[in-house]
Amino acid sequence: MSGEIHSDWRQKIIEGARDLGLPVNFSSAVIDHDASDMVGVNILGAEDKDFWRDRKGAGINAIRTSTHLKDADVVVVRFGPKYKQWNAAFDAGFAAALGKPIITLHDEEHNHALKEVDAAAKATCRTPEQVVDILKYLLS
Amino acid sequence: MSGEIHSDWRQKIIEGARDLGLPVNFSSAVIDHDASDMVGVNILGAEDKDFWRDRKGAGINAIRTSTHLKDADVVVVRFGPKYKQWNAAFDAGFAAALGKPIITLHDEEHNHALKEVDAAAKATCRTPEQVVDILKYLLS
Amino acid sequence: MSGEIHSDWRQKIIEGARDLGLPVNFSSAVIDHDASDMVGVNILGAEDKDFWRDRKGAGINAIRTSTHLKDADVVVVRFGPKYKQWNAAFDAGFAAALGKPIITLHDEEHNHALKEVDAAAKATCRTPEQVVDILKYLLS
Amino acid sequence: MSGEIHSDWRQKIIEGARDLGLPVNFSSAVIDHDASDMVGVNILGAEDKDFWRDRKGAGINAIRTSTHLKDADVVVVRFGPKYKQWNAAFDAGFAAALGKPIITLHDEEHNHALKEVDAAAKATCRTPEQVVDILKYLLS
Amino acid sequence: MSGEIHSDWRQKIIEGARDLGLPVNFSSAVIDHDASDMVGVNILGAEDKDFWRDRKGAGINAIRTSTHLKDADVVVVRFGPKYKQWNAAFDAGFAAALGKPIITLHDEEHNHALKEVDAAAKATCRTPEQVVDILKYLLS
Amino acid sequence: MSGEIHSDWRQKIIEGARDLGLPVNFSSAVIDHDASDMVGVNILGAEDKDFWRDRKGAGINAIRTSTHLKDADVVVVRFGPKYKQWNAAFDAGFAAALGKPIITLHDEEHNHALKEVDAAAKATCRTPEQVVDILKYLLS
Amino acid sequence: MSGEIHSDWRQKIIEGARDLGLPVNFSSAVIDHDASDMVGVNILGAEDKDFWRDRKGAGINAIRTSTHLKDADVVVVRFGPKYKQWNAAFDAGFAAALGKPIITLHDEEHNHALKEVDAAAKATCRTPEQVVDILKYLLS
Amino acid sequence: MSGEIHSDWRQKIIEGARDLGLPVNFSSAVIDHDASDMVGVNILGAEDKDFWRDRKGAGINAIRTSTHLKDADVVVVRFGPKYKQWNAAFDAGFAAALGKPIITLHDEEHNHALKEVDAAAKATCRTPEQVVDILKYLLS
Repeated sequence: MSGEIHSDWRQKIIEGARDLGLPVNFSSAVIDHDASDMVGVNILGAEDKDFWRDRKGAGINAIRTSTHLKDADVVVVRFGPKYKQWNAAFDAGFAAALGKPIITLHDEEHNHALKEVDAAAKATCRTPEQVVDILKYLLS
Repeated sequence: MSGEIHSDWRQKIIEGARDLGLPVNFSSAVIDHDASDMVGVNILGAEDKDFWRDRKGAGINAIRTSTHLKDADVVVVRFGPKYKQWNAAFDAGFAAALGKPIITLHDEEHNHALKEVDAAAKATCRTPEQVVDILKYLLS
Repeated sequence: MSGEIHSDWRQKIIEGARDLGLPVNFSSAVIDHDASDMVGVNILGAEDKDFWRDRKGAGINAIRTSTHLKDADVVVVRFGPKYKQWNAAFDAGFAAALGKPIITLHDEEHNHALKEVDAAAKATCRTPEQVVDILKYLLS
Repeated sequence: MSGEIHSDWRQKIIEGARDLGLPVNFSSAVIDHDASDMVGVNILGAEDKDFWRDRKGAGINAIRTSTHLKDADVVVVRFGPKYKQWNAAFDAGFAAALGKPIITLHDEEHNHALKEVDAAAKATCRTPEQVVDILKYLLS
Repeated sequence: MSGEIHSDWRQKIIEGARDLGLPVNFSSAVIDHDASDMVGVNILGAEDKDFWRDRKGAGINAIRTSTHLKDADVVVVRFGPKYKQWNAAFDAGFAAALGKPIITLHDEEHNHALKEVDAAAKATCRTPEQVVDILKYLLS
Repeated sequence: MSGEIHSDWRQKIIEGARDLGLPVNFSSAVIDHDASDMVGVNILGAEDKDFWRDRKGAGINAIRTSTHLKDADVVVVRFGPKYKQWNAAFDAGFAAALGKPIITLHDEEHNHALKEVDAAAKATCRTPEQVVDILKYLLS
Repeated sequence: MSGEIHSDWRQKIIEGARDLGLPVNFSSAVIDHDASDMVGVNILGAEDKDFWRDRKGAGINAIRTSTHLKDADVVVVRFGPKYKQWNAAFDAGFAAALGKPIITLHDEEHNHALKEVDAAAKATCRTPEQVVDILKYLLS
Repeated sequence: MSGEIHSDWRQKIIEGARDLGLPVNFSSAVIDHDASDMVGVNILGAEDKDFWRDRKGAGINAIRTSTHLKDADVVVVRFGPKYKQWNAAFDAGFAAALGKPIITLHDEEHNHALKEVDAAAKATCRTPEQVVDILKYLLS
């Protein structure tokens, strides 16, 4: 699961799957925003420039993300109403090139901006419940 | 070359390389915004829903984009000040998974939002001239 | 196991393997014809055009199919007497490009029409019992 | 170009592209039906059983087909009104697993039977002229 | 383990590894010579020509062999004093192209004939005991 | 073209293709037996042990062989009446794992010993003329 | 874990992870220097020339190393103050081409000499404790 | 050609091949030491820390190196008497994982330190002339 970290869509999918007893393992990036952004300098030492502070953090987070993407059977990518969320689109492109099936999750207002990503996806959902329904169907 | 279609960055890179006599072939998506958006319905017939109109167009454009990405030796991805540009980030992720070297081109204000993409890139440029300088160096 | 959904060939293979105690895990597409065809609109909302109704369903089913094909050690593809069954041949081509061993299962009358598929297969069976015999041999 | 050999769709696409001066190289299987079917026994010697006669021919034709599919930038697959055409669907599946962009070409009546193939394609055309229009757009 | 089926080298390696308690899973082709040769016609029906009888058997055996080669961490290939054993050399070439580490096992008299195979191998052993010693070392 | 170096089969295929004006490029290992066997020590210095003399030569020859196999559209492998020719079978296995179409060329007496290799091939020829006929057909 | 064998960095990482209860499996080359160097001749027989003695040992060790690198989710490469440690850099390059995330571990004095390796790494640590911190974060 | 930049080994190989009229294209990293080290900050702006100065340069050089390695038919890696040359060993590992044939070029004194790299190479040369001899043989 990749994308927006400012709503509880991950939790809804996980709980929905758990309530149905679906045998799914979920993985995602660290979604504690501060822990994620600062992990590089927290562990590896401070940087004067924000650019390199971000680089250190992004490097460590990329270990997690790329491993999860390579191990995943299905990749769910969420685009929310705020921020650029370029990393979510980057993850989707990475997953597409790996041949991983992608499910996108976003509101109609982003249809046009996400048309290339949706075209590479197997399904476009509007709600976390729809994602759970698809998982339920796939595992039936 | 992938990304922003509302400034002349592509032209500057192409002209810069041409003025230096660099043996580079450039390719990019169709950047006539209307032609690109409407290509699906223009060729394959109208759709009532914008979602499927976009799907038809995105499918055709994806033929071009994926072929270019697979053939490229270097992928330059530009992020401009406006719009979501999720397709640019998607292309960057696709290129990264293919192991293609990526050069990003964007202003400092987007450093933080693009930290994951920049971490996957070999160089982050601020101006088209810097991209040309890198190409010149690579081909020296 | 891919292909015809109008006879009980899957069941015969599964039961045959079970009776022999073979350690095989079987997987296949959802073979409840209506559930499979309508899954897209059932979960993601109705479509006016049958083309897009089918697209939504095919997208979701493709998640299941492509994951199963990539995980399989052997792919059994059944062609029955009725319908076009182009998805079965598509699955066979997909499996062939992945380097997966294929077993085809069909009557003699389809020999000529399936000559390209059979040439890409490791064995052509006429009955589910023959498939079970091969599995038994492979696991001996 | 893969698929139906009983109409002149290939010729229309080739001529359409030539008239527009498009720099495209077309390749396809040998479409002289008899030459293609009998090539195995013609070159390698007769067989008593049709099954092995077909196998010999299919083997030789597969050299041509697989090489063309691996070299192609775009794969056009045509499904006509007659015959099973399982080899066309097989080629489509093979191309899909290779990550090649696919364009399908068929009438509306086959929409449902081809839904899985169309879902793996970048565009579904109804006429050879539409295929030419797409090639023209892609090469603009 | 691939190769000669007329001596007990496999058994010696398996027993040697078992005596040391090494956590290794061994796999190999069916080495009952008759069962292996006749499996095609036994299951799928008789053939008048030996060529096609062999083809049927070889197809089924290839399912087993290719799956084992793809799953193996190490491939041991034995060349004995008799017969052509081209399938052993074929397996070695297949494994080499997959990047699998190869251990060859043969007497000195075959050094020259096997120079290309040995050059692609990580080690050349003279006795099954040496193979066990290597496995023991690798798993220490 | 890989395999036997003690008859003029390569020359016959090359001349046959040239006489037909077929646009084929042929490549093969160095077939001057002594030059090939001694190349390692000739260039890199003598060895006391034949095993290492052969290793040095096999390493250099493998550069040529593996590059040719990876570049080839079709791989022709010849097995003659004499010697072990394990390198030919090794090349065939290597080509098979790369997904290259293989044509074998050998007499009937070797059918049984080559059944696994033939099963991985697209065609089995008895004469160089048949190979030329296949090339002619493929390029028609 | 690859690299320097003259300090206890491996032990510190393993113990650090164990104390935190992290579910990590560690693997590395045999780090008993003599056992590793002499394994080839110890098992496979003596050599007069050191070059071939080393070759025999390196071949066996490569089985272990390449298997570990292919199985690893993260590769930690340590460069110490002494010796050339070219095998560590070789392992890093091998891992990079496989797309494995790399963590380098070395002192500041080697920054310049390792700039290409560090540029291919996701993180550069100075202490084993930092490696453990990253693993802890990745597995949180 | 990768490795040592403080002797004229590249020039000797290029001239030797040119004198023989060998149809080889050579490529290598930028070997003007200062231009190579400073390219990052020269084009993309200064850095306070040497670590990031090096990162910027290494990123740009990696575009060149990785493209050359992927395009090469043979990779020649030179290790000289001075410096760590970890980038040469890194390139060798990268090439090995890509399945590229490697020729190493170094003096005997480095045999032991380079045993893992030499074991992954097809030939180990002592002089540039030997490399030219191998190229001459390969292209004969």
